[in-house]
Amino acid sequence: MRMYDLIMKKRNGEILSKEEIEFMVKGFTEGSIPDYQMSAMMMAIYFKGMTEEETLFLTLAMEHSGDVLDLSAIDGIKVDKHSTGGVGDKTSLALTPMVAACGIKVAKMSGRGLGHTGGTIDKLESFPGFSTEISIEQFFENVQKNGIAIMGQTKDLAPADKKLYALRDVTATVDNMSLIASSIMSKKLAAGADAIVLDVKTGSGAFMKAEQDAFALAEEMVKIGKNAGKETIAVVSDMDQPLGEAVGNILEVKEAIATLHGNGPKDFETLCITLGSYMLVAGKAAENEEQAEKMLREVIANGKALEKLAQFVKAQGGDDSYVYHPEKFDRASMIEKIVAPQTGYIAHINCEEIGNCSLVLGGGRETKESSIDLTVGLLLKKKKGAYVQEGEVLAEIFSNSKEKTQAAKERFLQAITFSDKKPEQTAFIKGIVKA
Amino acid sequence: MRMYDLIMKKRNGEILSKEEIEFMVKGFTEGSIPDYQMSAMMMAIYFKGMTEEETLFLTLAMEHSGDVLDLSAIDGIKVDKHSTGGVGDKTSLALTPMVAACGIKVAKMSGRGLGHTGGTIDKLESFPGFSTEISIEQFFENVQKNGIAIMGQTKDLAPADKKLYALRDVTATVDNMSLIASSIMSKKLAAGADAIVLDVKTGSGAFMKAEQDAFALAEEMVKIGKNAGKETIAVVSDMDQPLGEAVGNILEVKEAIATLHGNGPKDFETLCITLGSYMLVAGKAAENEEQAEKMLREVIANGKALEKLAQFVKAQGGDDSYVYHPEKFDRASMIEKIVAPQTGYIAHINCEEIGNCSLVLGGGRETKESSIDLTVGLLLKKKKGAYVQEGEVLAEIFSNSKEKTQAAKERFLQAITFSDKKPEQTAFIKGIVKA
Repeated sequence: MRMYDLIMKKRNGEILSKEEIEFMVKGFTEGSIPDYQMSAMMMAIYFKGMTEEETLFLTLAMEHSGDVLDLSAIDGIKVDKHSTGGVGDKTSLALTPMVAACGIKVAKMSGRGLGHTGGTIDKLESFPGFSTEISIEQFFENVQKNGIAIMGQTKDLAPADKKLYALRDVTATVDNMSLIASSIMSKKLAAGADAIVLDVKTGSGAFMKAEQDAFALAEEMVKIGKNAGKETIAVVSDMDQPLGEAVGNILEVKEAIATLHGNGPKDFETLCITLGSYMLVAGKAAENEEQAEKMLREVIANGKALEKLAQFVKAQGGDDSYVYHPEKFDRASMIEKIVAPQTGYIAHINCEEIGNCSLVLGGGRETKESSIDLTVGLLLKKKKGAYVQEGEVLAEIFSNSKEKTQAAKERFLQAITFSDKKPEQTAFIKGIVKA
Repeated sequence: MRMYDLIMKKRNGEILSKEEIEFMVKGFTEGSIPDYQMSAMMMAIYFKGMTEEETLFLTLAMEHSGDVLDLSAIDGIKVDKHSTGGVGDKTSLALTPMVAACGIKVAKMSGRGLGHTGGTIDKLESFPGFSTEISIEQFFENVQKNGIAIMGQTKDLAPADKKLYALRDVTATVDNMSLIASSIMSKKLAAGADAIVLDVKTGSGAFMKAEQDAFALAEEMVKIGKNAGKETIAVVSDMDQPLGEAVGNILEVKEAIATLHGNGPKDFETLCITLGSYMLVAGKAAENEEQAEKMLREVIANGKALEKLAQFVKAQGGDDSYVYHPEKFDRASMIEKIVAPQTGYIAHINCEEIGNCSLVLGGGRETKESSIDLTVGLLLKKKKGAYVQEGEVLAEIFSNSKEKTQAAKERFLQAITFSDKKPEQTAFIKGIVKA
């Protein structure tokens, strides 16, 4: 088999076989197929697409390009959750203790990654002493005992995807549904869960700006999951403005804690309850979504979800007193209020730009080597559709540098559009995609 | 400027500017733009094409990626000729002394290359002592004095094209008219001629199998030439069977000499006269094609063309007695006749396979390191449309190995198709493309 012939085949609109796709992924991962052939193939796929079967074969080949986690030592149905990412997305922080409190086993292996804020691991490290550098034995023991554990990615999960994504990223071949879906799903499948709940975002702060693209991606991923024999459900939700009010590491941890107290922002709570319901049903902890929702609201009301967070933080060396006393967290040295420059409705928020405010404040990583300032970020006081008077506070910026505050402030104001007319209300949950 | 953005632009069907194309070619040649980005770009071009302007800019950028020959020290209009290649193509051997004898200055820089037989330089080296390793001063002196010289490629002509073609060759991005045309024309422009006559082949032995593709390529190249300010004419001719009767280095040299005596195969003579006519008109040695043809036939009849070949061979150290006594050339140790396995018309010849017969006999290079056996090859005794009796001689194989003879013979017979019906006669010259 020659990669040249496979490129030619795809270029001519033909369908690649399972063996051909496996040959391609294996050769590329090992280095026997050079980058320049793979990038030509990716561009041919961009133009000619892949069938449902080809997409599955690509996903499975990437899944098996490295380690595949075996979670069978943990009792019960393991349900994983994945978000396509957005601004103010602290969902895992609140959702995982909620579902764990309802009996779903959470066994996650996480990386750090780049973004407007840090990843889940960075945020959890706001708790003094907390570490994800635990042994695989400790990891399994914690999951068995507490129903929840998160460890740093020590295993080599889907290295083919990592290498391929890096190549697509510099050759303008990212935007293809089959490729995006197989990239996400190969990692999720390698992570070993029995069922997967996907949190697909859409809007100005999401990777998928257009709602129809978000649904197309959701459908593509659900199809892969189903074809790979894993129950997979996707929730498509709004990311046309930040999720909740907090953007920034410690600010988001505090918002997650507030949500576990039942005092979280409405949209964020809705998302956690919705995703959690599908996770509980998939994990057979509830019979249907209504029952699941009741259970989730109950573990918030009776404090069990908060307790689960404390138990989880403590089990991984963290100071759990912060869970009950979030005022103990470090604070930024300055808080600057941004006020409305005019009276009117907030008609539009360029959500990605709000994320960039956090980035310029130092809250995220631009390169792998960047260090993160956990204290900085912003709190939105007004969201889309709100009517504000000139001079009213729109947001608070948490910062440790005057220059950065100024830069973030300018960026923030640029990102907000006012209108005399009340903007149309749109649904927060756009829809559910199931097999 | 970032290559990423240029790939994205082309992928989205937009048009690249002169500056962008120059940036791309320069970066690729220097190595600052990696192969994997360039191959993605080539695949995007394969799908989205290039405009006439983009094609010109690409050609010029590649032309200027290395040395551009300055032939201004040579008086008169310098006319170059290029063939897209085929089986039994010894055109330069006969054509260059013909036009030189009519007053056109031939100043060629040639490479060796891969193929069914050697290139023009290999064939010329059949003359004992002949060398193309002459100094640039000697080269210019010979052209001034004799009107003809060919030297080995010492200059770095269009290195961007060389690098790009090698990449396209392994990424299934060769088949695009703009890319093929700009590759050929960049080298021709760098070779410094004032006018260019193109010999575009079509049929089973040509790169362009389909006639419409050959015309499309001819038009693309003529447009580039015109846009680059060089008079450019393309002759589209048949390569659905070998050109002339001889395939193989010394066999072809002898056929060229016979043609200069006026005893060459009809098709080959026609091609030399046609290409030569356009060269003479482009070089202002004749007023029109009819006059040019008369002049060319005259230098054959009066022996001046043959004399010019002898003068040229001698000036570059070769034994010119071979021009007058071609029986002196080395001969293969065995000549095997291939006879017709049946009675009927020769309906079709797989021309590329006939070329491969020469290759398996050792007459061509499979890799740059291969050495060539100048004596081997084959002589076609019957061509397409001929009616043959079973047992009649179809061809003679010249070989130095029994095994190779057998392999070539089998291959030859596989390449011939017989029919009871006389096949339709098709024109040898398919058409002329001018700006």
